Order: sequence, then structure tokens, then C-alpha cells
Amino acid sequence: MDLWQEMGLEGRRALIVHHDDLGITHAQTQAYLDLGYPTGSLLASSTWAPALAGHEGGDLGVHLTLTSEWNAPRIRPLTGGASLRDAHGFFWRTLEEVWRHAETAEVEAELRAQVEAIYALGIDVTHIDTHMGAVMRPDVAEVYVRLAAEYLLPIMLPARLEYHSLPEAFREPLRRLLDASPLPRVGMLMGYDGPAETMRDWYVETLRGLGPGVYHLIHHAALPTPEGRMLPDWERRAADVDALQDPEVRGLIGECVPLTYREVRDALRAHLRKG
Amino acid sequence: MDLWQEMGLEGRRALIVHHDDLGITHAQTQAYLDLGYPTGSLLASSTWAPALAGHEGGDLGVHLTLTSEWNAPRIRPLTGGASLRDAHGFFWRTLEEVWRHAETAEVEAELRAQVEAIYALGIDVTHIDTHMGAVMRPDVAEVYVRLAAEYLLPIMLPARLEYHSLPEAFREPLRRLLDASPLPRVGMLMGYDGPAETMRDWYVETLRGLGPGVYHLIHHAALPTPEGRMLPDWERRAADVDALQDPEVRGLIGECVPLTYREVRDALRAHLRKG
Repeated sequence: MDLWQEMGLEGRRALIVHHDDLGITHAQTQAYLDLGYPTGSLLASSTWAPALAGHEGGDLGVHLTLTSEWNAPRIRPLTGGASLRDAHGFFWRTLEEVWRHAETAEVEAELRAQVEAIYALGIDVTHIDTHMGAVMRPDVAEVYVRLAAEYLLPIMLPARLEYHSLPEAFREPLRRLLDASPLPRVGMLMGYDGPAETMRDWYVETLRGLGPGVYHLIHHAALPTPEGRMLPDWERRAADVDALQDPEVRGLIGECVPLTYREVRDALRAHLRKG
Repeated sequence: MDLWQEMGLEGRRALIVHHDDLGITHAQTQAYLDLGYPTGSLLASSTWAPALAGHEGGDLGVHLTLTSEWNAPRIRPLTGGASLRDAHGFFWRTLEEVWRHAETAEVEAELRAQVEAIYALGIDVTHIDTHMGAVMRPDVAEVYVRLAAEYLLPIMLPARLEYHSLPEAFREPLRRLLDASPLPRVGMLMGYDGPAETMRDWYVETLRGLGPGVYHLIHHAALPTPEGRMLPDWERRAADVDALQDPEVRGLIGECVPLTYREVRDALRAHLRKG
């Protein structure tokens, strides 16, 4: 299917501004509320996710998680799988550890529990995506695609695998899996890998240079409060807050067709009903 | 046994300054580090507990938890017991719900997992206490006393049940259980039930009026940061921070014998070795 065509987006520049990592700290949920962009995804085993559960106009998804990468705060799996956790009982710190240890069946139970947990908060889930790309191990990516089909939800699927730094052995099976999927794919935009000082410039240049397409712009906004500053990458998260409040950046975002995952989800469901 | 006598505390005023509820927010762990009093207890299913795991000079215990009382942050059981959680998957909000729903076997598995989880952080656990007194249902109190015996740890046992507002039906079996326990009991001091404005005065008056005994002074210090202010009772938590930095209060605390649970634990273990 070409959902983007059905949605009338062909030849246009459609933009989903996506808030990653929501729920781990108050600095993130407050940045979400302050910025006013509706779309983001929540970590199910975080403690602050309930703060956004009742939020009017939210376009919120499930940020499937298999890592807990900071010294603190740290989070745990919702399920009991021993292969999902380190010696301290938390998710593994690194993708390498997840990909080495995690057993497919335990991962599947965990990811399913995460989706259920976000629904259980009373949230009308609009999409699923992935924390640090941990679902990109090919057998886990199969689970990711299957969850999309079961829950009738769009998942974040990058148009090009080059967005992720993946082990060479993952690339070919992943490519086959994604090419076989009927789900729509997005152009991924993310300034996170650059320094905080040039974040605003990255937004301006990226948005100015954008050709037609459907884009998923990832940001990690968190306020630079005492709590927010405990995150090792807080400067880049604070730079996202500043950039997304910058008049020129907001103007450039305003020149794109604003897109939500709710619209994508509803179009996807309408398409599937038509058969 | 009279451990206090063996420890040479008879006739003296010994004081454990105890930081409750550690780990749920950064505002609490930072207040702990700022204040410099060593003793407190951590919620095992919180996200910030690892921030104190490597803290030198910590006198840290397990804050056994069966409730998650705020709108956010909220926390979940570590174990799967269905009787421990509400419709959203978190611990029950109120003691009444816990006491109505929680099944003894599921509670026991959960409390044991909480103790193990704090050890798994690499913390040399010095004691066990209870969040909101949830363990005071008599069958759960038996588990609490049993954990103390198994782990050779002191647990917080109040000298008088009047400190807790308990259902009438709990009082007689609880009294029998506690009277039968060989574990030492403490005088509980807590200014939390009063208003924030008079917190400092409460400390001064309470400490001035203290007769001989071993006291467990509960405080809930949390910094009034944007995150800390999300807690509905943040003003009383901030008042604890202020009071515990007040020169007169610190002077009065300094007039007591400073006691840690590490000393109590080690004396208890030495006593048990002697048989």
C-alpha cells in the first residue's frame, strides 16, 4: 500500500515532531507540556508516564524499551525474563548487551506487556517506536512488525537502515523484513548526534533543505532543572527545548504539513477495513 | 533481649535521623546528599535508588512498599502478583485498598523481592522499614518480622502502636506479635502530620522535650525543585530540608547520641552469635 498517497501527502512535506523517551523524568514530561507538540512516546516502565495519561490532545505511543543506559534513573523490565536484565535487576545498559543476551520469547513477552501497560494507563495509543533502536535485532524486529499488525498501530519504520548503526549481520535480514512489510516508512530526522551548541542551526538547515516526503523528526527535549541535569546528555536535551521554542525553527516547522500518528493510525485502520 | 542495654544506651537519648521514601525522585536523593545524615531507606521499585548505591557512609535500608499514592510518579510491584496492583498496573493508591486486596503469599514474594533488589544494587543493607505502615496488617507483619530474622536485620518496630492509625481489628493480633518479638523497639518521632509552617518549631519542641530512650525520627526531606514540587506534600518535605539545616535543630540533634542502623544491625548480629 502507499498510505502516504492515500492520505494525500504525495509531493508534500509532512512532518511529525516526535518527543522521544517520555516518562523517565519530570524534566521530560514538563518539556512536552511546555512545547505543545502533541506527538511523543512513553516508556512503559517509567514512573512519570501517568503524568501525561490524562493530557488532552496527546498523540502518544509506546517507546518499546530494552535498555536502561544511565546511572540513574534506571528502569526495570515489566516481566520476569532473566535474559532481559543485568545483575542489578535493570534493563541492560547497552544495545550490545541486549542483543547478546535477550531471548526472543522473553523479549516478546516484555514488549507485549509494555504495549498493554500504556493502554492500561488509559491512553489511546497512536503508535509504537523503539528506544535506542533496540528492536533492530532481526528476530526482535519481527516481533515489532507483528505487534503493529496485532494492535493495528503504525510503528516507526525508517525509510533507510543507514539511520541506525547496526551490526553488519543484521542488515540483510532486516532489509528483507522491512521491504516485505506493507507498513509505511518515514524519513528519520534527528539532530541528537551533533553538539548542543549547533542544535538550533541543525534544525534550521535540516528543515530548510527538506524535500517532499513524510518525516519523523526525533527530539529529546528535557528541561535543564536539577533533575534534568542529572541526565548525562542534558545539554542536548535542553538545546532541543530551546530550538523548538525558537521563532525561526517554529516558522520552518509551520511550513510543513503537521502530521500526527493518530492521523496515520486512523488512515491505516481505514485502509485495512477496505481490505 | 534488651539490645539497647547491651549497646550501652540505657538512660541515654539516642537518635536515628531517618530519611523516608528515598529513590522515587531526584529531589529526595539530592536532599539526602545535601543534608548529610547517613540513615534512610530506599524503595526498591523506584528509579533513583541507584543514585545512592555507591554513596560512601550510607546507612541505607529497604523501605518495603505496597502503595503508590501520588498521581505521578507512580511505581509498580517487582513481582507479578495480581492482588498487589490496581487497574493501571501500579501498587494500590491507599492502605485500605492494599489491606482489602493483597494476598499474603503474593505480598511475601514481593517484599522478599524488594529486599533482594536493594542488595542487588550493591548496598550493604542495614535495616528494613515500611512505607505508610502498609505491613501493619497482622499477617503481613508476620512476614515483616520473619524477614528480619532471615536477613539478620533490624526492622523498624514502634514502641507503641498508637503511632499508626490502624483498623481496630489489627491492634490485638499486632500487639501480640510485637510483644512476642525479641527485636528492639523504637520511639517514633514524626512531624509530618503537622503543617509545613510549624515544622521547625515541631523539631525544636520535640527534641527539647525528649526523655531517655532510643528514637527513630522520621523525615521526608525533598528539595523544592520543579520535580520536587510535583509531590502533593512538597511543602512539608521542603520544610524538613529547612528544619534539618536549621542551626538550633542541628544543635539539639547534636545533644543526642547519634545512632545508625548499621550499629544496631551489628550489635544484633553479635548478640545472636553469642546465642
